Amino acid sequence: MESRIRQLPWRQVTNPHGPFPILDPEGVERIHEASIRVLEELGIELWNAEARQLFADAGAIVDGEVVRIGRDIVEEALRTAPSQCTLTSRNPDKQIVLGGNHVAFGLVAGPPAVHDEINGRRASNMADYEQFIRLAHYFNAIHVIGNQVASPMELPANNRHLDTYRANLTLSDLCFHTLSIGRGRALDGINMMAISRGITVEDMIDSPGVITVINVNSPRRFDDEMAKGLMTMSEFGQIVSVTPFTLMGAMTPVTLGAGLVQQNAEALFGIALTQLTRPGAPVIYGSFTSNVDMKSGSPAFGTPEHAKANVASGQLARRYGLPYRSSNSSASNVVDAQAAYETQMSLWGSILGGTNLIYHAAGWMEGGLQASYEKFILDVEMLQHMMEFLTPIDLSDDELAFDAMSRVPTGGHFFGDEHTLARYTDAFYAPMLSDWQNHGAWLESGAKNTTERATALWQTALDDYVEPTLDAAVAEELDAYVARRKAQIGDGDP
Amino acid sequence: MESRIRQLPWRQVTNPHGPFPILDPEGVERIHEASIRVLEELGIELWNAEARQLFADAGAIVDGEVVRIGRDIVEEALRTAPSQCTLTSRNPDKQIVLGGNHVAFGLVAGPPAVHDEINGRRASNMADYEQFIRLAHYFNAIHVIGNQVASPMELPANNRHLDTYRANLTLSDLCFHTLSIGRGRALDGINMMAISRGITVEDMIDSPGVITVINVNSPRRFDDEMAKGLMTMSEFGQIVSVTPFTLMGAMTPVTLGAGLVQQNAEALFGIALTQLTRPGAPVIYGSFTSNVDMKSGSPAFGTPEHAKANVASGQLARRYGLPYRSSNSSASNVVDAQAAYETQMSLWGSILGGTNLIYHAAGWMEGGLQASYEKFILDVEMLQHMMEFLTPIDLSDDELAFDAMSRVPTGGHFFGDEHTLARYTDAFYAPMLSDWQNHGAWLESGAKNTTERATALWQTALDDYVEPTLDAAVAEELDAYVARRKAQIGDGDP
Repeated sequence: MESRIRQLPWRQVTNPHGPFPILDPEGVERIHEASIRVLEELGIELWNAEARQLFADAGAIVDGEVVRIGRDIVEEALRTAPSQCTLTSRNPDKQIVLGGNHVAFGLVAGPPAVHDEINGRRASNMADYEQFIRLAHYFNAIHVIGNQVASPMELPANNRHLDTYRANLTLSDLCFHTLSIGRGRALDGINMMAISRGITVEDMIDSPGVITVINVNSPRRFDDEMAKGLMTMSEFGQIVSVTPFTLMGAMTPVTLGAGLVQQNAEALFGIALTQLTRPGAPVIYGSFTSNVDMKSGSPAFGTPEHAKANVASGQLARRYGLPYRSSNSSASNVVDAQAAYETQMSLWGSILGGTNLIYHAAGWMEGGLQASYEKFILDVEMLQHMMEFLTPIDLSDDELAFDAMSRVPTGGHFFGDEHTLARYTDAFYAPMLSDWQNHGAWLESGAKNTTERATALWQTALDDYVEPTLDAAVAEELDAYVARRKAQIGDGDP
Repeated sequence: MESRIRQLPWRQVTNPHGPFPILDPEGVERIHEASIRVLEELGIELWNAEARQLFADAGAIVDGEVVRIGRDIVEEALRTAPSQCTLTSRNPDKQIVLGGNHVAFGLVAGPPAVHDEINGRRASNMADYEQFIRLAHYFNAIHVIGNQVASPMELPANNRHLDTYRANLTLSDLCFHTLSIGRGRALDGINMMAISRGITVEDMIDSPGVITVINVNSPRRFDDEMAKGLMTMSEFGQIVSVTPFTLMGAMTPVTLGAGLVQQNAEALFGIALTQLTRPGAPVIYGSFTSNVDMKSGSPAFGTPEHAKANVASGQLARRYGLPYRSSNSSASNVVDAQAAYETQMSLWGSILGGTNLIYHAAGWMEGGLQASYEKFILDVEMLQHMMEFLTPIDLSDDELAFDAMSRVPTGGHFFGDEHTLARYTDAFYAPMLSDWQNHGAWLESGAKNTTERATALWQTALDDYVEPTLDAAVAEELDAYVARRKAQIGDGDP
């Protein structure tokens, strides 16, 4: 079936523009040096003995659970970490490059609640999980599935990751994020992606198909499960984004300079661990530095400070020659103007920072506590606006149109000119969500606001969604894997 | 009375960041050369004989009403046009520089309708005009009053400009825009600003106090009234922004390259006329290039093409060494997510283009047909976000806060640390409109969306508004001027 929603075709987005530095080179070095001092003098608490041993073997000072590392370990890690990596799903046409001037957009990840304007707010569940995966597959602006868009809370916590991975692989053909809490969940994601691609896990070492985000228990703590997840992913050559979640005023000092220093120290530590696990393992410099509302302690997102952190973090990532991950986010409780302007602040900060992966690019609401259907649509529209903004201006003779200008009289109009008629259907970006009707026509058509129009769009998209074909043998193998692992896990840990 | 709304203090905004070019230098030259070709070969229709004579005297080819000019006239104009100018109102503390890295924000201008969520949509009128001037005075993010925020349609068209100028000068202490339809309306604005400053019109030649925007009847036509307004303002040394209103697909060819070429040709022509009128007269390179919806012919704003035009036009203005004016705008019929994202697209395009004056910065709705109270508040909030984004990151030792990091244990939090306590009240930008409450608290407080909260804010602002003091003798002189001019104008033209 032809889809009823006009959208941009699938493409890997590139950002043709140079950097937009908001720190001068000395500023970047000051943050770097201060971070090195944090790593050397204060260190990072690391609750995993195997990981501590890797650092000790590399010359770090291990004091109980605290690991202090020098710049030598950081520099050696940066020497082996690749500047670019590629994610390949079961559909090779949807391969995405992370690094250079490439930009990819990920589905929102992690909310314990979902919301739409018809059914209201409810706990995350498997039915909504599947709907969001269908939407992510349907809309070409989404390049990668984030972690647990709507965690199926009604399913057993120790094996529900298997159901979500299966949904990712059957309802979409995109790459996805493994849940890297411990080794088992990460390995399951790697195994299932390998099955879907018809290759071995060993083949996948040089051609990663899954990604994970390692947040940090900021300030300065990596717990055991997190360290195991990171090491498992790196051991198997899969992509790790080390992303300290550093809300200034709570998990870092209350100043942006300090927030960046602490983020940078924690990120460099995690990056070093990926390279100690497997030199050359693909790793991404992640930033999620925003601030809290100092009146209430509530987290805030899409703030001016968050936007600045997004730009400055890109400068740090470039200093280290690493791909860069940022986020789209808002604290708004409702899909409205605030939801849009906060997300725009994060989005522009990301793009100006030269981001390679915008995580939570579509659907993030309520400070990450809610995956919203309407916000997903709004975000896809805003991502498409950005994709078109990043398309270079064509200055060929045909586009400069001197002849058309010479044909149309002064004070006239170009509607009927042949130059217009030859191009008008595709001349400009045609939004799916914006309403450009005049006031009278808008009133007559129901005076719907953007959020109401978004409701109609996700419904249409779900109606028009077509499940991607999957070889029956592969589907069977995935089912068998899930069944076998569920039996194996039983009541225990994955 | 202390205001109940927390806002940023009055300040002239500066943009510390370098340019963000989206055209390469060759692209800028291609647009320049194509514009020169338009001026040389096609020319501009000019309905004013005096202006045609100025061009003829400078060596232009005048053929009936069409004036064709060569690059020599353009280059001579660019030689005498100043790269920067200053607007001074009756309050010298509110002087604003236009040029360099300075950025000023103007109130929406021109809508024939006004709207608020309590009283609905209605024709522009004097009562609303005055309310908007009070809001512009109240909110520090507004630096200049645009043309006719809500044209008082119930007053006589031939003299209502006098009432609006008087309102500008009594209800605010800001600089303002004269209505430059013919000579009389421009001169009245100049005279009344001089009265309010207690100086002569001759004194004001070197210290402009008013500004005007000259749109063009694109394609390629300056009408008589427009030419007279421009020449009057330049004759008296006041600031002219030459801003072709070039909606691609309607007033220009349907391609962005051609839109920029035509805008540039028309702008250069008007800029030349200011310098022929008075060499050294302050003039601004204006851009308002967006596109129409090619399905309906409706104008669209804040589109990706509009954002790109805003950036590219800044490159052209810099190539000519002129201050640069752009716009904030949206086609949305309602203050919602679309209103926010379209305005954000224009706003970021403006800032990345190195704009010096964002006209229509607050209150523009419905493609410019509506001045909206709630949109005004939304825009002020977004402007404040941008002001804070443009504040450089402080990387002093105190801000990097190594000591604070060393005091707070791993996995702990910084809420109670002395470094936080010393800074928490002003550490981060505190928005007036954003709601950062958690979902439960937000529900309990009435589940208000951004637009509903904006309604409360403009009401509070109007309640708390304090009229700026004005010397009684000056007020009397303004009244006398208005009365004298109304008598003089009678039923005729101003």
